[in-house]
Amino acid sequence: MFDKVYISSSIKEFPRTVARGIGQVMFQDNMWTGILFLIGIFWGAYMEGSPLVAWGALVGVLVSTLAGYILRLPDQNGAQGLWGFNGVLVGCAFPTFLGNTLWMWIGLVICSALTTVARSGMDNFFSRWKLSSFTFPFVFCTWIFLLSARLFNGFPPVFMGSPEFPHGAEGVIPMGFGDLVVYWLRGLSQVFLIKSWVCGIFFLAGLAVSSWRAALWAAIGSAVSLLIAFVWDGPAVDIANGLYGFSAVLTAIALGATFCNFSWRSAIWAILGTIVTVFIQAAMNAFFAPMGLPTLTGPFCIGTWLFLLPAYKFFQPDEKN
Amino acid sequence: MFDKVYISSSIKEFPRTVARGIGQVMFQDNMWTGILFLIGIFWGAYMEGSPLVAWGALVGVLVSTLAGYILRLPDQNGAQGLWGFNGVLVGCAFPTFLGNTLWMWIGLVICSALTTVARSGMDNFFSRWKLSSFTFPFVFCTWIFLLSARLFNGFPPVFMGSPEFPHGAEGVIPMGFGDLVVYWLRGLSQVFLIKSWVCGIFFLAGLAVSSWRAALWAAIGSAVSLLIAFVWDGPAVDIANGLYGFSAVLTAIALGATFCNFSWRSAIWAILGTIVTVFIQAAMNAFFAPMGLPTLTGPFCIGTWLFLLPAYKFFQPDEKN
Amino acid sequence: MFDKVYISSSIKEFPRTVARGIGQVMFQDNMWTGILFLIGIFWGAYMEGSPLVAWGALVGVLVSTLAGYILRLPDQNGAQGLWGFNGVLVGCAFPTFLGNTLWMWIGLVICSALTTVARSGMDNFFSRWKLSSFTFPFVFCTWIFLLSARLFNGFPPVFMGSPEFPHGAEGVIPMGFGDLVVYWLRGLSQVFLIKSWVCGIFFLAGLAVSSWRAALWAAIGSAVSLLIAFVWDGPAVDIANGLYGFSAVLTAIALGATFCNFSWRSAIWAILGTIVTVFIQAAMNAFFAPMGLPTLTGPFCIGTWLFLLPAYKFFQPDEKN
Repeated sequence: MFDKVYISSSIKEFPRTVARGIGQVMFQDNMWTGILFLIGIFWGAYMEGSPLVAWGALVGVLVSTLAGYILRLPDQNGAQGLWGFNGVLVGCAFPTFLGNTLWMWIGLVICSALTTVARSGMDNFFSRWKLSSFTFPFVFCTWIFLLSARLFNGFPPVFMGSPEFPHGAEGVIPMGFGDLVVYWLRGLSQVFLIKSWVCGIFFLAGLAVSSWRAALWAAIGSAVSLLIAFVWDGPAVDIANGLYGFSAVLTAIALGATFCNFSWRSAIWAILGTIVTVFIQAAMNAFFAPMGLPTLTGPFCIGTWLFLLPAYKFFQPDEKN
Repeated sequence: MFDKVYISSSIKEFPRTVARGIGQVMFQDNMWTGILFLIGIFWGAYMEGSPLVAWGALVGVLVSTLAGYILRLPDQNGAQGLWGFNGVLVGCAFPTFLGNTLWMWIGLVICSALTTVARSGMDNFFSRWKLSSFTFPFVFCTWIFLLSARLFNGFPPVFMGSPEFPHGAEGVIPMGFGDLVVYWLRGLSQVFLIKSWVCGIFFLAGLAVSSWRAALWAAIGSAVSLLIAFVWDGPAVDIANGLYGFSAVLTAIALGATFCNFSWRSAIWAILGTIVTVFIQAAMNAFFAPMGLPTLTGPFCIGTWLFLLPAYKFFQPDEKN
Repeated sequence: MFDKVYISSSIKEFPRTVARGIGQVMFQDNMWTGILFLIGIFWGAYMEGSPLVAWGALVGVLVSTLAGYILRLPDQNGAQGLWGFNGVLVGCAFPTFLGNTLWMWIGLVICSALTTVARSGMDNFFSRWKLSSFTFPFVFCTWIFLLSARLFNGFPPVFMGSPEFPHGAEGVIPMGFGDLVVYWLRGLSQVFLIKSWVCGIFFLAGLAVSSWRAALWAAIGSAVSLLIAFVWDGPAVDIANGLYGFSAVLTAIALGATFCNFSWRSAIWAILGTIVTVFIQAAMNAFFAPMGLPTLTGPFCIGTWLFLLPAYKFFQPDEKN
């Protein structure tokens, strides 16, 4: 089952596979992107006083990548970092929402490994429509464990909001140019559940190392989300913390720089998808309020599926013409 | 991309395409049906003191049909009115549930156009089982915007019910024969979110112009839903307002007069599907109560899928025998 | 349509088909298993003072099996008992959660028949991925009727929990060895919504008659669920009543003794799936708390799909090697 050649070659590839796993959270099959992301995560987590988030991220990506080797999933996926990107997000989410108990860490390990299983199955499901499961394995598996934390005291839900009926919020935040730049960068950093503008700069740099298009669209995505959320008068404090940005950022990179061709039509398509993702973010926040469940990157998945599902039939004009 | 021939032919077809879009809400590829429906909508909306619903319907069908031309979706669908029926419902729903702000109207335009995108993708999904997405693009996209209205003050959710735990309701309503006829006609008019028995007559007339079978099944659907909802002692005021009828009406037309053959077995099938749709209506009302979200025509979609999904394998006896 | 040969052969097969339907709840195509299960159900229901549950089970399996004949679904499925297993669970669930009214019984009959329709359609859906709908027809159809009971007074939801926000629970229960054995057996009996350790013994015996592997994995499933739920400090009273066991038992039989090959890897796979099912159970309990809806065997379906969906691509090592 595990011959020596497989093991020794796996050990050699392992560090690169792990780094690429971190980069794949924003669709970059690039080791340096992953390393810059990881630096940003550690910087942001320590600055914000939540260092466990960074260590969780590291544990998560290691475990889910290892799971890929142990399950002997196709090597090509692993080499592209596709085993690790869900795990790293699980690792960020657990210490962000749950108290620091032994059982939280065991749950983090189980959930990270589970995303590798779930991704294999969900991609099997979505491949019928030439779609990917994106970060939905992370979203779905983490939802399971965060919801169970409402009933299992071994997972103390100390940093999760209380279940309540959805309601609008008033709030006054500073709106100077410098403030807006901070909010805009936080939209980027929240992709890894971190609220730190410095971290956002690291993420932009990590993207630019791999693809200037991806960096550009990430920047556009966060800016569009700020604009839409402010114009529609959303919850100001959440917007300032970047909580309406992260899904929009991912949708913008996915539609603008990853799965569509590069044309004016595609660019308009990507901006529409990003705008709709901001409304989906608000909608899911409201829907999950009575359970006190965070949306994670669910809005990105739904928004991107919505705009790629028809695309594969009628979009992609350059390829056909 | 947009040559002159395409534009000039599109302009000629446009009014008919729009009218058919309104007719397709009840599965009728017929311009006159659409015109009678539109008259009914305007009559009902003005009588009930909510004229914006009628104007919203007009904007919605225009925008979503235009979106079909702009996206250059297959012409044949457009000619049958399949771009417009989701948009007209979006246009009815926005002013029904949200306050009259500029952002509500911009949201209405975005959401109407989005249904054309969503329909193309969802039909791609459902075509694997020879099913259609029915009005689910309307339902899904409108859910997004209505839910976001809980958090985005730009969409004032002034006409949406408060989020609350589901609970039974007592209520006394007159039960004379004339009253029952009014409730029965309101079940029809609520397909377009209008509470007006006169409007219900226009809808029956519109259906009869295109297909007496469709008119008959719409009438049966509303009658069955009244019977079931009263026998199981549902919320009397809601029943009187037609809120347990509209989805059942659509299921009855779909199963009785559109997607099944005409036989006694199919008729029984359609009535069973209609009965189940009434329970799905109550179930979804209860499920969405904590979010304060209306079901829209979701119960019709679920009920009809449930009864068509097996049918394509073992039903349709006349075609095979 | 119904010739004499079909009717007379159906009448002969009917008792066996019904008994196998009961056995198929735990994947056993075996008449004696079904008979032992039914004895266990009657014993447990009468001991626990809820005899209607047993009679409901009998009505449910009869109606849903009859529906299979009437709809003339493929005979082979019927002979294996695949028409009845959802109906028997519907029959257990209705008197467990709803008050004893005429309308409850009519609802039970409608819902039981509906599961046969729904199963045919859902299997059509899931067959694209070589999956089965498992007990999801029961789960989905019963959810509809239980949710509608919140609004339709004809279904008095007297034994359903009140809708509330999810919250942790404290509780002290005896933890002697004998107590644990009782909890462990209740996890088995709750597959049919019965809280009775004697009933659990009948179920183990029924499984052993057909397959010692299935009996073993059922026993493992209940033990694993106890362990996980206690270690993570879940709601003690619910755990003692077997409410964290029944879905895990079904996942364990499905993955350990039914749909995977027999190897060490499969065994580990089955145990992982069982552990995850316990967390899904807690998650769904929390998710449905605001609607006051029981999960039924939904966690089993989700857990098993999650672990079979990838399996069909890369698992099943013995077949390929």
